[in-house]
Amino acid sequence: MKINGSNYKTIWCDSIEQNIKIIDQTKLPHSLEIITLNNTDDVIKAIREMNVRGAPLIGCTGAFGVFLACKSSIETDYIEVCCNNLISSRPTAVNLEWAVKRVKDRVLLSKKKDRINTALHEATLIAEEDIKNCKSIGRYGLEIIKNISQKSNDTVNILTHCNAGWLATVDWGTATAPIYLSSKSGLDIHVWVDETRPRLQGAFLTSFELNHESIPNTVISDNTGGFLMYKRRVDLCITGADRILSNGDVINKIGTYEKAIAARENNIPFYIAAPVSTIDFNHINSSDITIEERSDDEMRKITGKVNDRSFEVDIYPEQSNSLNVAFDITPSKFISGIICEHGIFEASEEGIRKIFTKLSK
Amino acid sequence: MKINGSNYKTIWCDSIEQNIKIIDQTKLPHSLEIITLNNTDDVIKAIREMNVRGAPLIGCTGAFGVFLACKSSIETDYIEVCCNNLISSRPTAVNLEWAVKRVKDRVLLSKKKDRINTALHEATLIAEEDIKNCKSIGRYGLEIIKNISQKSNDTVNILTHCNAGWLATVDWGTATAPIYLSSKSGLDIHVWVDETRPRLQGAFLTSFELNHESIPNTVISDNTGGFLMYKRRVDLCITGADRILSNGDVINKIGTYEKAIAARENNIPFYIAAPVSTIDFNHINSSDITIEERSDDEMRKITGKVNDRSFEVDIYPEQSNSLNVAFDITPSKFISGIICEHGIFEASEEGIRKIFTKLSK
Repeated sequence: MKINGSNYKTIWCDSIEQNIKIIDQTKLPHSLEIITLNNTDDVIKAIREMNVRGAPLIGCTGAFGVFLACKSSIETDYIEVCCNNLISSRPTAVNLEWAVKRVKDRVLLSKKKDRINTALHEATLIAEEDIKNCKSIGRYGLEIIKNISQKSNDTVNILTHCNAGWLATVDWGTATAPIYLSSKSGLDIHVWVDETRPRLQGAFLTSFELNHESIPNTVISDNTGGFLMYKRRVDLCITGADRILSNGDVINKIGTYEKAIAARENNIPFYIAAPVSTIDFNHINSSDITIEERSDDEMRKITGKVNDRSFEVDIYPEQSNSLNVAFDITPSKFISGIICEHGIFEASEEGIRKIFTKLSK
Repeated sequence: MKINGSNYKTIWCDSIEQNIKIIDQTKLPHSLEIITLNNTDDVIKAIREMNVRGAPLIGCTGAFGVFLACKSSIETDYIEVCCNNLISSRPTAVNLEWAVKRVKDRVLLSKKKDRINTALHEATLIAEEDIKNCKSIGRYGLEIIKNISQKSNDTVNILTHCNAGWLATVDWGTATAPIYLSSKSGLDIHVWVDETRPRLQGAFLTSFELNHESIPNTVISDNTGGFLMYKRRVDLCITGADRILSNGDVINKIGTYEKAIAARENNIPFYIAAPVSTIDFNHINSSDITIEERSDDEMRKITGKVNDRSFEVDIYPEQSNSLNVAFDITPSKFISGIICEHGIFEASEEGIRKIFTKLSK
């Protein structure tokens, strides 16, 4: 997608330098900076410090991390250790484990002399598939938006939480893919962007993305979405997912749960858009899921601009404690459907089983 | 209540200077500054710019505004114009109109030479009654907390939204009065403080208040409360109200609605604590209520500290639009009860009628 009129992806291999480049998402929207990743330590740091974020992009970055591991050493033991470290760099995203294991499995099956190329090839495949999957999610989601548009004959107001945009994937995004395709199809849409505290990824990233693609959008505080639903100013909610359990429960950015409850209360469809790599087929319920609690610095420190210079300010009273729960769990009953690259499925054990069956064929 | 160990009220008449002093709440928690109000223009500015906020305190400030009007001129026409201006300085709080009219009615019934003293006397009465009412709300609310404490035999976790603390009243607060009394009674309590975007009154004011009274509290992002309820980490919600309609619907800080839905979904009691002056007995439903939309500067600009100096930074991408809806409407069905100075009443037409009957006796 575009930034200042130029096309970008969030991650790519520099074929001359043979290293990996990423957009530093902690610097957006205040500045556009590119980071070079030379080894797995760089990758782990980038994932931990959220220079890359979003489950699909984290997965993809992990995949390229295996390539960088192979560049350092083609020995099996070394690669195994690196892969374990990569997987444990973020606990919630299941794509990370999936992507790292996929590249590792290929690599360990190949001859030592081929390992570097095999890793690069497989990681590149994962990135390309991610783009294809996002586009496919977009096409299925487009139909939902088209239907609402035809019925209402008015602007379709779509609410989204956090950033499940192209910046959370390699390109197109998951929750935003239907939005980008609707816009390109000429549908009249407007997006309510939850600012998404504490890290403000909605305001910082989603609104930034949509602005650069000229899609009308309005940032709202996280307190506002429910009331806009009550006032019939929202037609549809779409968010991404960090992890989908095999019973259809969804783990996503903190606040998703509250929006989903409010949507059901007001009979507004609430969809999850995510690739199947987000599904954790082994997890039937959420009771044993570890929900990541992150540093309270993410809450008390905010970066903004004064006269075009970026500053980080401390916003809380010095003595105040805070708790930074990063994700929540939205039970399947609040979810109208899961839009994945294979279609739209019910958020339920049966729905997830159907996806599994489709994959097994 | 205490700040740095000294007792304060939010508003008082300086008996030597014969003017009104307020704590500048826009400067908290970063610094404690006192503003002097010399005339109604000062009062209107203080209300508009939210140097004072919270429905009961706004009402009280308006009442002292009539005193300052009388000090400028004791002519009826002048006083009438000033009162109208005072009333229209904030559209949502019904206490403001109630308090200004109460002082005005007394003043206009009195002889011209007595008007200044009458106004000061009546405004002071309103302030004293506010303190008495808050304490009374506290005593009724204390019983609810005591009951939960006895049943669970564990820390009672209370969630509150925005600031309905002593800083929103003259002293004690509405939602916080039960909390302060519980703490003074030795009950084991902990408060979840919604940070309350956009103006962060939870983090800036409620947490600040509770810290200075040594009450354990944790600031959370506005996205978090629902999930803490789901995880059974909240026993009770108490918020204030800007306006209660005669059907029991409540208008309060944006986000109250979402918390109330989440509380009902998780079977957690959700109480509104407010004096009867907050009740709009003439309004049977919310459809014709104007919900204030405020400047988007409140969303994009945040004040914080860098090395002990306060800075205001701009946090949104330059091109981004935002919408700042200041209040929402929580339908009565989500409310477990209204705690007022006369007891705890059902949030319903019947409940409000009972309060009205009590007042008429």
